[in-house]
Amino acid sequence: MTTQEQNQKRTELTELGEFGLIDHLTSGIVPKNASTVKGVGDDAAVIDNGDLYTLVSSDLLVEGVHFDLTYTPLKHLGYKAAVVNFSDICAMNGVAKQLTVGIAVSNRYSVEAMAEIYSGIRLACDKYNVDLVGGDTTSSRSGLFMGLTIIGTAAKDEVVYRHTANENDLICVSGDLGSAYAGLLLLEREKAAYVANPDMQPDLEGFDYILERQLKPEARKDIVELFKEHKLMPTSMIDVSDGLASDILHICANSEKGCAIYEEKIPIDFSTINLCDSLKIDPTTAALNGGEDYELLFTVSQKDYELLKNFTEVSIIGHITDKNSGTNLVTRSGQLVPLTAQGWNSFRK
Amino acid sequence: MTTQEQNQKRTELTELGEFGLIDHLTSGIVPKNASTVKGVGDDAAVIDNGDLYTLVSSDLLVEGVHFDLTYTPLKHLGYKAAVVNFSDICAMNGVAKQLTVGIAVSNRYSVEAMAEIYSGIRLACDKYNVDLVGGDTTSSRSGLFMGLTIIGTAAKDEVVYRHTANENDLICVSGDLGSAYAGLLLLEREKAAYVANPDMQPDLEGFDYILERQLKPEARKDIVELFKEHKLMPTSMIDVSDGLASDILHICANSEKGCAIYEEKIPIDFSTINLCDSLKIDPTTAALNGGEDYELLFTVSQKDYELLKNFTEVSIIGHITDKNSGTNLVTRSGQLVPLTAQGWNSFRK
Repeated sequence: MTTQEQNQKRTELTELGEFGLIDHLTSGIVPKNASTVKGVGDDAAVIDNGDLYTLVSSDLLVEGVHFDLTYTPLKHLGYKAAVVNFSDICAMNGVAKQLTVGIAVSNRYSVEAMAEIYSGIRLACDKYNVDLVGGDTTSSRSGLFMGLTIIGTAAKDEVVYRHTANENDLICVSGDLGSAYAGLLLLEREKAAYVANPDMQPDLEGFDYILERQLKPEARKDIVELFKEHKLMPTSMIDVSDGLASDILHICANSEKGCAIYEEKIPIDFSTINLCDSLKIDPTTAALNGGEDYELLFTVSQKDYELLKNFTEVSIIGHITDKNSGTNLVTRSGQLVPLTAQGWNSFRK
Repeated sequence: MTTQEQNQKRTELTELGEFGLIDHLTSGIVPKNASTVKGVGDDAAVIDNGDLYTLVSSDLLVEGVHFDLTYTPLKHLGYKAAVVNFSDICAMNGVAKQLTVGIAVSNRYSVEAMAEIYSGIRLACDKYNVDLVGGDTTSSRSGLFMGLTIIGTAAKDEVVYRHTANENDLICVSGDLGSAYAGLLLLEREKAAYVANPDMQPDLEGFDYILERQLKPEARKDIVELFKEHKLMPTSMIDVSDGLASDILHICANSEKGCAIYEEKIPIDFSTINLCDSLKIDPTTAALNGGEDYELLFTVSQKDYELLKNFTEVSIIGHITDKNSGTNLVTRSGQLVPLTAQGWNSFRK
């Protein structure tokens, strides 16, 4: 800590939390370039380059905060790091095109270990038709850090933001929720058992799905392609990275609206329920606050209800309300419970 | 370290070095998208977006590797992190437009400390007319990490690469070299003195210039503007981040050419020479291998020699030769000494 800082007022990072901190640090920024269509505050920045919009999103991944190398194979780490970025472009209704990757590692890593990470990144790039266009490797004093930036494109009239949900819109989500978190809980349970008794073999039998959701997630590029195919324009969209509760609250806050989410409509996989039962955790809590699902959470005008029948992997889980009605979960027993953002916050650990 | 890695062959990162490692990890990548004009291997990637080219460059900055917070004010750190990225866009003959910033810090940092870093970033953005369009903050277990990505633009016929130098081209450099490294040596000397005797005040008198070069460098946007004004198109260009030797070797290797650099022509500031003298270091070595100058190193066709007279802050330091003549420094005594890339390499420390 430098001298000039010790003399100043000290506010702990935990007081603001991750989103509060970003708001604080970026408040009052007014774009100077005409090409800056959308700056801080969505899944990706939007830049006008003439024919198309360019979408840009960056992520930092930190060992011990975002991933645990005890149970994360390096190739999976690379794959996930890339896919998580692709998901941000999907959340803007765009197509991911180019990726830059910076990796800092200590010298306890070998060339072969770096090549494993890159093989995962390159596999993801091949699968999603993305070009790796920039590589920066450097050393760290300890631990592994990755900084990724994804560049995508979208037609100017096809970009979908967070702030454009309308009252009475249907709230939809792709796939199922809570499974990546269930996979994490399982891995953490087996890690604790291994630490207690290193001779024990991990018991992961029958949980392939939730493990894959945690270790090798996919971005819902297929849903974005379906939007184009069936000419469905969501009115707003975000990807579920911090948990359903946190992410629908982003849409509601940015759109100045409320919402009603029906607990019984939240899609949860059978193996997620199984794992949650064995750990005595409410599966709804895993879906609301677990995060890392990388499913698309979006709103659709009621007039497009019929079009949703073409989306077999999409569930309608609620609707947008006026702001004064609040942001609520309607429980199975019919009670209204205000949604709170208890999702993943790296500063609150 | 994971099990799968322990079972494999282990090659130390130091065996390949930073550039060798990037080559190894990114070898065989073939662009899949027509919009990918230039991928890995220049100061920035080049993306075709219709009217213009979009330029993208990413950097990772690691505490204890790229900067030392003992003597780096946080605001300066933010300023330098941004400017260093802007310099990569200048090195492509482009204009920096949008910046994304990711910062990971441990909880020993306060909100005020983060705000200091951001104030430096925002100051740089204001000065260079760049929009901060993405912010990601997260926690780290220890230390400060920054990942920055700069987006710029250039007209399609104005992008200048590293691989396009021609035989007999003049080799030019803006400003002076070695001063940022001299500033670093001075700060390290005073830090060592302070550690030995904490009551001692640092003796930085008369060295404002080299300190500013180290702590608050500028990108040579002005030179890029002069290129446009005087209709001078360099045949190749790079910014001096790793040191003159390392960076001219990049141009020569990528262009498959040789070079002759004249020691007596290398621009070195008086205070750099002063500091080097006091530390018994050869100023030419500081210029060749010091790095962090963020000056533009470029080649110009001999037919444009007259135009160079408009560039008062540019020195002609040598010329491009055929590949077989090698990459040489011509010393003051007229000897030919092969240039070697002894510049900054984070894995070799």
